[in-house]
Amino acid sequence: MKAFQPPERILMGPGPSNVSPRVLAALARPTIGHLDPEFIGLMDQIKELLRYAFQTANEFTFALSGPGSLGMETALVNLIEAGSKVMVLQNGFFGGRLKEIAERYGAEVILVEEQWGRSFDPEKLQEFLEKHPDTDIVAFVHAETSTGALSDARALVEIAHEYDCLTVVDTVTSLGGCELLVDQWKIDVSYSGSQKCISGPPGLSPITFNKRAVEHVKKRCSKVRSWFMDITQLEGYWMGEIKRSYHHTAPINSLYGLHEALLLLHQEGLVTAWDRHRRHHRALVAGLHSLGLHLLVPPGEQLPQLNAVKIPEGVDDARIRSRLLNEFNIEIGGGLGQLAGRIWRIGLMGESSKPETVLRFLAVLELLLQEEKLDIQGGAAEKAAREVLEGN
Amino acid sequence: MKAFQPPERILMGPGPSNVSPRVLAALARPTIGHLDPEFIGLMDQIKELLRYAFQTANEFTFALSGPGSLGMETALVNLIEAGSKVMVLQNGFFGGRLKEIAERYGAEVILVEEQWGRSFDPEKLQEFLEKHPDTDIVAFVHAETSTGALSDARALVEIAHEYDCLTVVDTVTSLGGCELLVDQWKIDVSYSGSQKCISGPPGLSPITFNKRAVEHVKKRCSKVRSWFMDITQLEGYWMGEIKRSYHHTAPINSLYGLHEALLLLHQEGLVTAWDRHRRHHRALVAGLHSLGLHLLVPPGEQLPQLNAVKIPEGVDDARIRSRLLNEFNIEIGGGLGQLAGRIWRIGLMGESSKPETVLRFLAVLELLLQEEKLDIQGGAAEKAAREVLEGN
Repeated sequence: MKAFQPPERILMGPGPSNVSPRVLAALARPTIGHLDPEFIGLMDQIKELLRYAFQTANEFTFALSGPGSLGMETALVNLIEAGSKVMVLQNGFFGGRLKEIAERYGAEVILVEEQWGRSFDPEKLQEFLEKHPDTDIVAFVHAETSTGALSDARALVEIAHEYDCLTVVDTVTSLGGCELLVDQWKIDVSYSGSQKCISGPPGLSPITFNKRAVEHVKKRCSKVRSWFMDITQLEGYWMGEIKRSYHHTAPINSLYGLHEALLLLHQEGLVTAWDRHRRHHRALVAGLHSLGLHLLVPPGEQLPQLNAVKIPEGVDDARIRSRLLNEFNIEIGGGLGQLAGRIWRIGLMGESSKPETVLRFLAVLELLLQEEKLDIQGGAAEKAAREVLEGN
Repeated sequence: MKAFQPPERILMGPGPSNVSPRVLAALARPTIGHLDPEFIGLMDQIKELLRYAFQTANEFTFALSGPGSLGMETALVNLIEAGSKVMVLQNGFFGGRLKEIAERYGAEVILVEEQWGRSFDPEKLQEFLEKHPDTDIVAFVHAETSTGALSDARALVEIAHEYDCLTVVDTVTSLGGCELLVDQWKIDVSYSGSQKCISGPPGLSPITFNKRAVEHVKKRCSKVRSWFMDITQLEGYWMGEIKRSYHHTAPINSLYGLHEALLLLHQEGLVTAWDRHRRHHRALVAGLHSLGLHLLVPPGEQLPQLNAVKIPEGVDDARIRSRLLNEFNIEIGGGLGQLAGRIWRIGLMGESSKPETVLRFLAVLELLLQEEKLDIQGGAAEKAAREVLEGN
């Protein structure tokens, strides 16, 4: 065995996205202790930068020492006690995971289903809350990574609050990639991932709890089941005023990388980043249309950063994806769950959301589809995408 | 805010230890997808290298996407069902954490206490198991990071097995730093940390389950409480034969670093690494003795990689540690729990276990203690340490 030399991929799947050389360089800086005052200063800056990214003033805003799915479980395990009533709104794969986790911790789950590939309809939430007015928590995914559908988090949270529910909003794929205003939309708890639209090192989960949610946790009758995920324990580690108490050893070098990625986002500006994601999405879609391909999600409900494309009839899903990867170093994603084999998931997230990525991908896809004997006009995709890119 | 530039510290606390430039360089390699065949190949190599480090053939051997305390919780949550009887052997801070976690997941805990700073006495385990022969699980810490005491894991496991108990052994601080033979000692479940004696990037937890433990998990009456930590879910991600199933996004760059750190350990050889830790420990102790300092733990029970030194009377704990850090870039640890303010914890782990570290530390400590008005002969500590280093 020898040192691992990864290939240089263009990452256009559902995450991770490409990581900037500045962030990679940060990862390689010398490790220091996790209770070192210099490191505590870094943690404070990360909290501040995360507050900017989430658009929140929540004190309880930090990065969990694990991936987004740990964030999902942390959000739920802190709020749920045995018998809590949790309404899970499912319009894709990750809604199913919310249900699974809530049930494991003893919640009574009311699952409300929406067609995969559509936004979750706020009227449906209203209707179900009328039927179940004693619901404690409403949980849903803002940007469904499995389908590319964006739900109206503001509207859903507003309805949930009419019934005095706490809200848990999965923003794994939305943070940094499209509008997300945690305070303005009054989201109670939200968690995300480091490896999507903020293009940090994979493996961290930014999370934020508002005061109402923190108070709920502090008033629990029973201890939070998980010791590792208990936010009242993490409080002393990330937020002690004078002296931080030991909880666990943070992933120090990964946090160097997250800090740098968040700095890049801050330097670009959130609105500029959201616009960038939208522009490259439009260019991609123009190119895909010119190749005769269609998105799963209707235009008004579509995320800019993740595009689920219906695989044309007669085209071999696995062959195209493996040729993209092995011959052209381009990674895209396949479908999850009921969408396996039916869609490709093309991410344009964070560092991967740039003109070169879009143009390169379209040129290669055109070539591969021509070799699959689809009747496609050469150069049309690139031309259509360039028109969008230059029109802005 | 600007890019974070950490200082260059000599890390001689209870972890993290210094990380080799080769490992730091690995962290900065380009990120690839976590389902990329190249990455899956890397995961397979990591499993193989971890089997070597743990001295096990267990198939279920991999790295969790979180720190050692997540490893502790993962070990327990998979084995425990409501009402499980768990005997926790506590001879330091981390035994208390085992108890806390087991209780949160509904176990009935029998806590058996030993003096902090001593090995756990196997006869005491025998005695308590005679009183509680229906115990299901025995959990203890092999190398107590809070005191520097080494317990006889082989003997403890043997006794636990006489009563048909499963054994959970915390090897966070022992892996790579002193003898640990998972298969020969018949340990059922063991977890460790990446940032101690293997000097990988902080934030990962190597873990191993033997067949008996895996069968126990698969025969559970109830689902594992935690979705994120459920090893039957992680199995498909780390161990699928043909196709890996998606579970979460691994901390890809951190795993590059872990792979490199494990390669370094493999190249050095385990026995050589254990010898190295012992040699530098002996040099450190010779130096400390010549300064009139004493270890908390009796010689036969002392870990080589972590040395708890009694703080001499009249010397200010915090002042010495902050001078070491701020004036000399040397980090050592303070005491935890009942030992706070009474000991310093001096780690010589992994990359930090080398002659330069020992000699530099002794020279600086001598100087600082002289300034605290202790009557100390200049140069004696370095001389004593050199004699040990050169004698080998």
